[in-house]
Amino acid sequence: MADEFETIAKLFAPLATHPGARNLADDAAVLGNLVLTTDAIVEGVHFLPDDPIETVARKALRVNLSDIAAKGAKPVGVLVTLMWPQGRDAAEIAAFARGLDEDLHTFGAPLLGGDTTATPGPLAVSVTVIGEALGRVPARADARVGEDVWVTGTVGDGMLGLQHLGGSIAYELSQKDAAYLIGRYRTPAPRLSFASAIAAHASASMDLSDGLAQDVGKIAAASGLAIDLDLAAIPLSAPGRAWVAEGGAIEALMSGGDDYELLFTAAPEARATIEAAGRTAGLAVSRIGRTQAGAGVTADGAPIRAAGYRHALGR
Amino acid sequence: MADEFETIAKLFAPLATHPGARNLADDAAVLGNLVLTTDAIVEGVHFLPDDPIETVARKALRVNLSDIAAKGAKPVGVLVTLMWPQGRDAAEIAAFARGLDEDLHTFGAPLLGGDTTATPGPLAVSVTVIGEALGRVPARADARVGEDVWVTGTVGDGMLGLQHLGGSIAYELSQKDAAYLIGRYRTPAPRLSFASAIAAHASASMDLSDGLAQDVGKIAAASGLAIDLDLAAIPLSAPGRAWVAEGGAIEALMSGGDDYELLFTAAPEARATIEAAGRTAGLAVSRIGRTQAGAGVTADGAPIRAAGYRHALGR
Repeated sequence: MADEFETIAKLFAPLATHPGARNLADDAAVLGNLVLTTDAIVEGVHFLPDDPIETVARKALRVNLSDIAAKGAKPVGVLVTLMWPQGRDAAEIAAFARGLDEDLHTFGAPLLGGDTTATPGPLAVSVTVIGEALGRVPARADARVGEDVWVTGTVGDGMLGLQHLGGSIAYELSQKDAAYLIGRYRTPAPRLSFASAIAAHASASMDLSDGLAQDVGKIAAASGLAIDLDLAAIPLSAPGRAWVAEGGAIEALMSGGDDYELLFTAAPEARATIEAAGRTAGLAVSRIGRTQAGAGVTADGAPIRAAGYRHALGR
Repeated sequence: MADEFETIAKLFAPLATHPGARNLADDAAVLGNLVLTTDAIVEGVHFLPDDPIETVARKALRVNLSDIAAKGAKPVGVLVTLMWPQGRDAAEIAAFARGLDEDLHTFGAPLLGGDTTATPGPLAVSVTVIGEALGRVPARADARVGEDVWVTGTVGDGMLGLQHLGGSIAYELSQKDAAYLIGRYRTPAPRLSFASAIAAHASASMDLSDGLAQDVGKIAAASGLAIDLDLAAIPLSAPGRAWVAEGGAIEALMSGGDDYELLFTAAPEARATIEAAGRTAGLAVSRIGRTQAGAGVTADGAPIRAAGYRHALGR
């Protein structure tokens, strides 16, 4: 939908009369102590037609679990709607169920229900996850001036995985790096192990789906402040650093989608606690910037081009 | 998916480890006092490509609200995922939102969240409704021998509306009858006004989506008993009776999909109370049969052909 998103959000926002809907401006809704999120993935938009069917199941689940983690919640149950192409071998549904099953066990979320329907179109999977809040449920709009900006894991890997699958990385990747990057694109890791730290320490929080620069911009805009990023602090994986060494722009990695890392702000007083929580969760957490009065996003004090990233075909 | 449904259900059932998932054999899941249901509708399968976009929004919501009513619950909130065809005028999304808005107000269910994505395929809408149980949440499997079988409203109208739209009703319909039948196909009425009666009096309950005969068979099979229907008691609308008078078989109306009426069983002692509840709700309730020991579905004691109905293209 590219730039029509804002328009669409404006159309639906008046329908969201429940305060827990957060005017549809957040990544999840809050209903009592429950956190609800729904996201669909469509073949040719959010995954590639030849992605293995098991990873399609996993990705559909994981992008939703990522929202749950970003809201400081743990998953309680999952609803899955599978729209299966009329021409596609239904025997593959067993592999879909197997991939889903393994991930449901890994992430401790039982399947509560769902729907299966034929479609004359591409494969699509719509998932709703019901989570339970582990504490406060941070919104995008909750950042305050003078806070640290943090991100988990590394950024840009999902985009590099997609580029590699599309044959648009010019140099040769090692088999190991290729597998790593493809894995990051097809099966992003929802950071549920860090959800309790988010609930305890984050002011604003969201997960990265459209690119770090763009998503930092969303927190800045929703919170009514500016964010300055420290380029040297942006966490890159070894294959990500190699890509930059080959001439790739770090800004491109910062505009790549499909990261599904957690982006959050927190008071400076929480630094040591957050770093300790990262160690406990076995997860890198990087302090990448600072909120300040104003508007917009800068890097090292200068404007950055944040073209964003619209998955394979735009969403 | 036609006859592969049973296979698919078997594939996913082991994933539903939560008792509230009811082994995926019911129409909704139960989580504490919440009732959760999700259903998608796809262009060319569950609605016609030239159905007005407002009615597509309404139908997507209503088929889910119908499940909530069948489980004796009231809606608390709604999540809507809209998969919008890349070639379709995005200006129509405003009309979609308008139709959704009106129905959300009518049925007292706020929008809690959702997702909008482009798709290279047909229009598809996936809806999740969160409901609050008004009492007991009856399953399909809860019928007991010696109970009455009831249905709300009239059956077969949705199928006749679809047939009329497809030009396959041979005689001329009055404008009024045509509008009525089309309305029944495009905008089925979720029987939320009867939900409290379901919670109070129904043993087994489900909503009719695949055809009365087929859905009666599902309750019989899930409950491990037989059901004998009384053909003379099957409630038909005036256009439905006219169709039978023109030579149509009542068995066809009983196998037509898209009814979205409530089908339930109850103890004979509850007859007067159920009839009174129907009057209070402004809704016809018809006693159409009886549960008995055995298996399968009969009508007036004889086997009926229950081919069922798979929406426009099969689901």
